[in-house]
Amino acid sequence: MQHVLEKAQAAKAASSTLACMGSLKKNEALNAMAQALRDSAAYILAENEKDLQAGRDKGTSKAMLDRLALSEERIEGMADGLESVARLDDPVGEVTHTVLRPNGLSIGSKRVPLGVVGIIYEARPNVTSDAAGLCLKTGNATVLRGGSDAIHSNIAVVNVLRKAIASAGLPEDAIQLIDDTSREAATYMMGLNGVIDVLIPRGGAGLIQSVVKNATVPVIETGTGNCHVYIDENADLAMGLNIINNAKTSRPSVCNAAESLLVHEAAAQTFLPMVQKKLNGVELRGCAKTQAIIDVKPATDEDYYTEYNDYILAVKVVGSLNEAISHINKYGTKHSEAIVTESYQCAETFLERIDAAAVYVNASTRFTDGNEFGFGAEIGISTQKLHARGPMGLKELTTIKYIIRGNGQVR
Amino acid sequence: MQHVLEKAQAAKAASSTLACMGSLKKNEALNAMAQALRDSAAYILAENEKDLQAGRDKGTSKAMLDRLALSEERIEGMADGLESVARLDDPVGEVTHTVLRPNGLSIGSKRVPLGVVGIIYEARPNVTSDAAGLCLKTGNATVLRGGSDAIHSNIAVVNVLRKAIASAGLPEDAIQLIDDTSREAATYMMGLNGVIDVLIPRGGAGLIQSVVKNATVPVIETGTGNCHVYIDENADLAMGLNIINNAKTSRPSVCNAAESLLVHEAAAQTFLPMVQKKLNGVELRGCAKTQAIIDVKPATDEDYYTEYNDYILAVKVVGSLNEAISHINKYGTKHSEAIVTESYQCAETFLERIDAAAVYVNASTRFTDGNEFGFGAEIGISTQKLHARGPMGLKELTTIKYIIRGNGQVR
Repeated sequence: MQHVLEKAQAAKAASSTLACMGSLKKNEALNAMAQALRDSAAYILAENEKDLQAGRDKGTSKAMLDRLALSEERIEGMADGLESVARLDDPVGEVTHTVLRPNGLSIGSKRVPLGVVGIIYEARPNVTSDAAGLCLKTGNATVLRGGSDAIHSNIAVVNVLRKAIASAGLPEDAIQLIDDTSREAATYMMGLNGVIDVLIPRGGAGLIQSVVKNATVPVIETGTGNCHVYIDENADLAMGLNIINNAKTSRPSVCNAAESLLVHEAAAQTFLPMVQKKLNGVELRGCAKTQAIIDVKPATDEDYYTEYNDYILAVKVVGSLNEAISHINKYGTKHSEAIVTESYQCAETFLERIDAAAVYVNASTRFTDGNEFGFGAEIGISTQKLHARGPMGLKELTTIKYIIRGNGQVR
Repeated sequence: MQHVLEKAQAAKAASSTLACMGSLKKNEALNAMAQALRDSAAYILAENEKDLQAGRDKGTSKAMLDRLALSEERIEGMADGLESVARLDDPVGEVTHTVLRPNGLSIGSKRVPLGVVGIIYEARPNVTSDAAGLCLKTGNATVLRGGSDAIHSNIAVVNVLRKAIASAGLPEDAIQLIDDTSREAATYMMGLNGVIDVLIPRGGAGLIQSVVKNATVPVIETGTGNCHVYIDENADLAMGLNIINNAKTSRPSVCNAAESLLVHEAAAQTFLPMVQKKLNGVELRGCAKTQAIIDVKPATDEDYYTEYNDYILAVKVVGSLNEAISHINKYGTKHSEAIVTESYQCAETFLERIDAAAVYVNASTRFTDGNEFGFGAEIGISTQKLHARGPMGLKELTTIKYIIRGNGQVR
């Protein structure tokens, strides 16, 4: 695994140069990267076609091929993304909470890059440029390890980005692609404590669990979202219908889509038939009380644990707000949870007692997103509690160090 | 391992009650815990004596027995500690960065407890009450797993604290002691994802590395400190001597003590003899250039990697500031690093380029401490970059959740 180690060490060496670099140079590099993607579109598309052909040859699903496919338009989207990251404020270098201690020491907290960020991801080649751009903006070097399905595309994109970085006078080693797509290479990378500072897995639950289980490098767990919408006794049912419809059907494959609907028993008789009618393309699976009101398949305990990422919705009638909260805290993945209610007390209780990254009153769970939160960009959505929770923007790709200025103090 | 799981689950159940509790109730419990320790001093000392006897029977070192020993005075110290934690401001519940998005959504970041904090530690029984108190103040439940050497003391302290918590009307399950001191119990605890939210190991390098290696629960790495003092070409040598003397000898066993001295070659001829004279109780080990100036043992590469925690100091003469910075970033543990210099440019370069939790100009590394930083208390000193870096106070025992208030927004 010498080749993985060498790339990670090269990234680490580059990270110390990047860490001291002002925004102007970093932004120049990001703009050069964007232009280089546009200029090299033909090369990237030709390499992408090799991945697509390999996918078709082994019978990859149409949905998967669509994720993998690049086009002039998608490359333009990647370039646009890099340019908009260049326009964001750079969080690095800010010094906050500076205090003058009684002994005369001045102690401040300075925002600095993490160092080397490892990203382990699956099929989408656009993650390659997105992640590299966000890391570069925050002064971090990146070690990328994409899936084998996109290997030709990833190699092409990284080649183009590295040349552009060098042309802007920054170290090209700031972006590294591990082109060994074996499981061993990924596992080896997960153990590079002291070289890689943090690992961010992006992909399905299987990938994320594998990284959480195998990594000794600190991990930020992202993305699994078993999200709920709870319709309270005091809900505006028209609003509730609009919210569950949006949360379930506007984009079922994403992590902030709803997977379960909970309905207070006082509202169920009226509300469930409304849901069945409005969400007519969605397969409903319900508890016994739900089945007594509308004709749906039964929901098992397993259903309530499942992130369908599909046009399927588990439904449960609950006897109280407390039951709803307990259900969500038990079955949810601490991503995004919503209540629809006109009751002040129920709203505040829900906000307080739900243990999740984002808790909503009278709005769709679909808003849990870096752009919707006003961060301008996003490297992922953290579902853990350490370091970052919810959408992670530029600030979450940094850490702090204390800088202490004295004039001879001893203790 | 059912008994470990049950305790962790009981802590989790208690944590949801604690999370919603105001400071008044929590402070009442902390004060009750302090009083109970005082009232039960005789019982605790009797149990502590069992540990001491067992230690003496198996030939435990005097230093180790001293760490283990409680006394009326030490119990008073533990009680005082709990009362001062009660007096600190409670970070829980603060909502910051609230923004009103263009679509009318109000998005705020609310500070909330982590949930269940696991502490794995070694011999000192005072860690038991310190950690339990800091966690309780921040609304967290604690699962404590102390070493076998202190098991009777830990059981006694936890018994007393749990009764006091219950008497103040809080759930006693907020504090759990894993009284199974087998390695298997610790390893099982490290895998309780979904029940324990974070693990903080406190102890020697062996313990910490074992937790980092084996845990799948997120870990905050603490405490190993291979700290350097660098005497620059432009240093005030009298100040430098005072600082290295303090950093090395004021308390050699702690993590913020210095282990290596780097001296610019232009200052070495004058400074090294001053060091040899002043630090006359310290064994110096030097590079070839050091040995050419003062008569000391040779330092190996291994020496530069070693946290002695003893009256030993590795010495190296360097040719430039850059060489000093490279040496520190290579051999250090990213804890605390100091430069002594009168040069503005050297000071700023050192502050910028050293990758450590705390970087000092003209002050001793010994100040890296929660109390010295003004945090009022400390659960440990993080040497990792995720979540917390440097001394961890109450705020570092919390996380955030986004609370979003809408009026029907969909996307």
